[in-house]
Amino acid sequence: MKNGTKVNYEVTEDDAGWIMSNTFLILTMQTGFGMLEAGSVSHKNVANIMIKNCVDVTLGGFVYWSFGYALSYGEPSTPFFGYGNFFVTADLNEDDAGSIFAHYVFQLSFATAATTIVSGAVAERMRLEAYMLFAVLNTLGYCLPAMWTWHKNGFLYAMGFFDFVGGCVVHGTGGASALVAAYMLGPRYNRFKKGPDGVHYTASSPATALTGLFMLWWAWLGFNCGSTFGISKDRWKISAKVAVTTLNGSIAGGIVGLISSYIVFKGRFSIDYIIVSVLSGLVSITASCAVISPAEALIVGFIGAFLALLALNFLEYMEIDDPVGAIPTHFTSAAWGTIAVGIFGKDDLSLLGGHNGLLHGGNFHLLKVQAIGWLLISLWSGLFTWAVFYAMHKVGILRMSLKDELLGADWVVHGVRSETITTKIEKILEQLN
Amino acid sequence: MKNGTKVNYEVTEDDAGWIMSNTFLILTMQTGFGMLEAGSVSHKNVANIMIKNCVDVTLGGFVYWSFGYALSYGEPSTPFFGYGNFFVTADLNEDDAGSIFAHYVFQLSFATAATTIVSGAVAERMRLEAYMLFAVLNTLGYCLPAMWTWHKNGFLYAMGFFDFVGGCVVHGTGGASALVAAYMLGPRYNRFKKGPDGVHYTASSPATALTGLFMLWWAWLGFNCGSTFGISKDRWKISAKVAVTTLNGSIAGGIVGLISSYIVFKGRFSIDYIIVSVLSGLVSITASCAVISPAEALIVGFIGAFLALLALNFLEYMEIDDPVGAIPTHFTSAAWGTIAVGIFGKDDLSLLGGHNGLLHGGNFHLLKVQAIGWLLISLWSGLFTWAVFYAMHKVGILRMSLKDELLGADWVVHGVRSETITTKIEKILEQLN
Amino acid sequence: MKNGTKVNYEVTEDDAGWIMSNTFLILTMQTGFGMLEAGSVSHKNVANIMIKNCVDVTLGGFVYWSFGYALSYGEPSTPFFGYGNFFVTADLNEDDAGSIFAHYVFQLSFATAATTIVSGAVAERMRLEAYMLFAVLNTLGYCLPAMWTWHKNGFLYAMGFFDFVGGCVVHGTGGASALVAAYMLGPRYNRFKKGPDGVHYTASSPATALTGLFMLWWAWLGFNCGSTFGISKDRWKISAKVAVTTLNGSIAGGIVGLISSYIVFKGRFSIDYIIVSVLSGLVSITASCAVISPAEALIVGFIGAFLALLALNFLEYMEIDDPVGAIPTHFTSAAWGTIAVGIFGKDDLSLLGGHNGLLHGGNFHLLKVQAIGWLLISLWSGLFTWAVFYAMHKVGILRMSLKDELLGADWVVHGVRSETITTKIEKILEQLN
Repeated sequence: MKNGTKVNYEVTEDDAGWIMSNTFLILTMQTGFGMLEAGSVSHKNVANIMIKNCVDVTLGGFVYWSFGYALSYGEPSTPFFGYGNFFVTADLNEDDAGSIFAHYVFQLSFATAATTIVSGAVAERMRLEAYMLFAVLNTLGYCLPAMWTWHKNGFLYAMGFFDFVGGCVVHGTGGASALVAAYMLGPRYNRFKKGPDGVHYTASSPATALTGLFMLWWAWLGFNCGSTFGISKDRWKISAKVAVTTLNGSIAGGIVGLISSYIVFKGRFSIDYIIVSVLSGLVSITASCAVISPAEALIVGFIGAFLALLALNFLEYMEIDDPVGAIPTHFTSAAWGTIAVGIFGKDDLSLLGGHNGLLHGGNFHLLKVQAIGWLLISLWSGLFTWAVFYAMHKVGILRMSLKDELLGADWVVHGVRSETITTKIEKILEQLN
Repeated sequence: MKNGTKVNYEVTEDDAGWIMSNTFLILTMQTGFGMLEAGSVSHKNVANIMIKNCVDVTLGGFVYWSFGYALSYGEPSTPFFGYGNFFVTADLNEDDAGSIFAHYVFQLSFATAATTIVSGAVAERMRLEAYMLFAVLNTLGYCLPAMWTWHKNGFLYAMGFFDFVGGCVVHGTGGASALVAAYMLGPRYNRFKKGPDGVHYTASSPATALTGLFMLWWAWLGFNCGSTFGISKDRWKISAKVAVTTLNGSIAGGIVGLISSYIVFKGRFSIDYIIVSVLSGLVSITASCAVISPAEALIVGFIGAFLALLALNFLEYMEIDDPVGAIPTHFTSAAWGTIAVGIFGKDDLSLLGGHNGLLHGGNFHLLKVQAIGWLLISLWSGLFTWAVFYAMHKVGILRMSLKDELLGADWVVHGVRSETITTKIEKILEQLN
Repeated sequence: MKNGTKVNYEVTEDDAGWIMSNTFLILTMQTGFGMLEAGSVSHKNVANIMIKNCVDVTLGGFVYWSFGYALSYGEPSTPFFGYGNFFVTADLNEDDAGSIFAHYVFQLSFATAATTIVSGAVAERMRLEAYMLFAVLNTLGYCLPAMWTWHKNGFLYAMGFFDFVGGCVVHGTGGASALVAAYMLGPRYNRFKKGPDGVHYTASSPATALTGLFMLWWAWLGFNCGSTFGISKDRWKISAKVAVTTLNGSIAGGIVGLISSYIVFKGRFSIDYIIVSVLSGLVSITASCAVISPAEALIVGFIGAFLALLALNFLEYMEIDDPVGAIPTHFTSAAWGTIAVGIFGKDDLSLLGGHNGLLHGGNFHLLKVQAIGWLLISLWSGLFTWAVFYAMHKVGILRMSLKDELLGADWVVHGVRSETITTKIEKILEQLN
């Protein structure tokens, strides 16, 4: 029942401090995602996107406490879901109270992140009420892959599938959801229209988006290093190594972004490229960070960022509208990062349960297991999102009306007034009438 | 002399790490409050409100080091104040140096927060010099309730009054000060005027305010979980539980905000409602977080947020101008949260010194003690603020001149120039002449 | 090989938690510096300055991993540089893996900060490609002073030179680089021109700059308190003391800023003065924080801030253009802070290796050593920067073209579009044609 590691240790007071400090750091990912997204969308939707992140914690958090944790880590359990420990609680007079509470809050910080990933891909056109419903359901949807992978009874766990932090469980699910969601919603108004009617959507503040990137970057260290779920015994060594591989993944990603942009845009450095590259370096390294070397981490991050930039351009070609680059960042990189365990993974401290990846073990066993795990998790998450979005579309609550979309959710949904917004709104209303 | 817990443990090296890490996290509340307030006030006062938070740390920090800590935790002491350990220091060669320094910085982070709460309520009209004087005096004013409640000789401590983190001591004092301060200052120019002369004050950036909310949210976990003042012995279990109850309080608060706003504004989600609700959920849970269950935490946060939204509307009706919602967030929720200990409190690990609240103990003893404690602390803080504001009003340094208020403190006090501000200033100067 | 302390302890699991948590906190300095700088430069360069900070981590991080750490802490070593442990890695099955990885990431966070300091001084006119090259080289340049001071074979270490956290090694090198870099680049277009052609450069957002100040402030606690490189044995006591002296340094700095500004600007509170003062208080205390008392910390911060404000005005008089005040903050304060060890230093727990400063020891030995150390480090860093900038100038890649500078790097280098920027760019292009 340890997060991402199959070596079972007890939780001591030292471990609890480590777990909770990192939980608090992981929660700052909400701030980071919020700023990244607010800086990337149009001026007229910046507050709305922050509210979506807020919803992920409040509604998502409520559902995770009442049902989600039970599905993921509850006892009794089947290989596919747990069904105990609903409405998580524990008695302080019992010995295991500390472990239960610490494990719960740590996992909660993961659950809320999984939904937040999707909010960027559906920005500027999905109705807030629909997003709320999705946040509730998606939190539950996330809980099953988490169970399969990290619960000692999970069927992927039994197969030897390895995802140390959630490169597949969190980012793969989020990425697959984001892809399906962006596709089903369709692009923003005239986003891909050629000619004078085409609308160029301007990021409200690239500097704010970059501030969000920085926040995510350091929070990621809590995400990855905290996933030893403790600091005692060998865990502090693993954590320290994970800090190095995680940083190297992001460094390689960033370098790919700088070079690619310089080549593609003939001497210009695209902020979109840099953000997607650094983040995809981080996502790529997340499944394997404990079982690869710092040099291999550079390779993993390098390839991950390269694939993400290809995906970014392919989505543009396919006319799938992803306002913040959530799909290349999370979907492609999760796929590659999960597979990378099967290529570069090394069974130090028995973290991989006796198996090595292709390069260190000389066989394809782990690679196959990783590919199957990634496929099943992505299919589950994609189909789940499809079903929810299809139902919401049929009921007619999925997408904002064209008028509302043009006016922007900040004014329509939240009544935000500012001089810039008000002037624009008058213009748009004139044009519509 | 432990913060908020009557169980006395020694401070070990593990505890020190926990205490300091959480202290650093608590200090990020200054960043959070700063962004929340800067995003909530008019464009012309955003830098000024950040400077006020800066003053809370510099002037407030100086006074707390020289006199404040001595008043709160100094020895010798009476039941009402301490009078030793002025100009806090310790000799590294002595055994207790670590405990003294760690305890001091932890408490300093609380003291600076108490004054920051007030800065929002007096925004856009109080003179900076007056605020500076207030920051100095209020830091000292805060030290007495802290002493009464948390010092082993404090008279409220002796009565069995319980405030685990400072739901009453920090937020109750800050909230009562904010109420008195906002009332005595009067509203911003024509803020409540009906008709064409009425001025609608537009928040400079709701997205920035929401970013501040997120920062406060995660810092609150350091605030509450760090208040075990250590991680060793049973403290890590209490900390882990507190993380869960704190999050549940905020979750319930957020849900109340979403639902209430949807009903009141007929389908719109007010950002003010959401911010006040999440924060009031957090404030409500702060006194009781260690002695109630996760389910009770939802109830406490739910009621706290509901009362805060009532208070928000009541203040509007009473024409008391509170630009950032500091009064509903901190005053009402502190009152309810302090009382809630007397209703839901359960004496696990003897945290409540042998008493239980109404529901678990079946009697009103703890409820009465909590009510008395809240009343005395609020009265002290309100009267103290009244005296300071009355004196500043009489001397004529309290409020900005109408001209300065219209021009905004950013330009008048700090000489901030920007195209937007400069254009507006020229308009205003024309109108005035 | 401990950072800043000559007392050698082993690293345990507790220490590892402390080291890594503080490393994560130190990395948030990148966010803080980024926001401080983005808020201080013109609107047309806010994204560009964030990208520069991003480059410090990606390119700087890559070089530090591959060569820099080897130069600073590698074995074998001479008194002037190390030459082992290139491409840092370790085997998890070996006992020292944890120490190596933890030490590396901690030192990495310092290395990236050293370059970031310079980015502010060269803002709005240095070409991004040139900055990239500089970031790579400067990371290596920083590694030598770090080796001389903190490696057990370093020649300054052998002389008894003391810099607990990097007041000289990080801020002195960064400050000397910033001074040379700003001088060699020359001022922004017409920045010091008198008359109607003079250009007043308006800070894009003082509130954002102040948010950056807050972030740096709390990150500094991780920087200074984490430099015990552990929490076990006496280290937690030193850490706790360092938290107090660090805060007192910043408090004294802030008070100097408030008072000076009030006098100089006749009742106005300059945001530049306040930012420079608080930060110079922090820089000043950084070398000595473990070996001086809280009261002495106030004196050190007070004098440091005062000197920084003098330097700020002297730079203006000398027409050296430093858009964010990096030179007074880091150069002057590093000089004073390094010297201050020789005046106020007290050899508690043998931190100073048997020597005391002037006041506690009654002789000038330590003062001389500190002065020599500061001089050599500053000379090295200044000359290194001079050589790099001179070469880039000769090759013609150092400074942006006048047209590009007028248009701003956000549009020219990053293709950032926004209504404000686009309108201005059209105006500028008209004027140029």
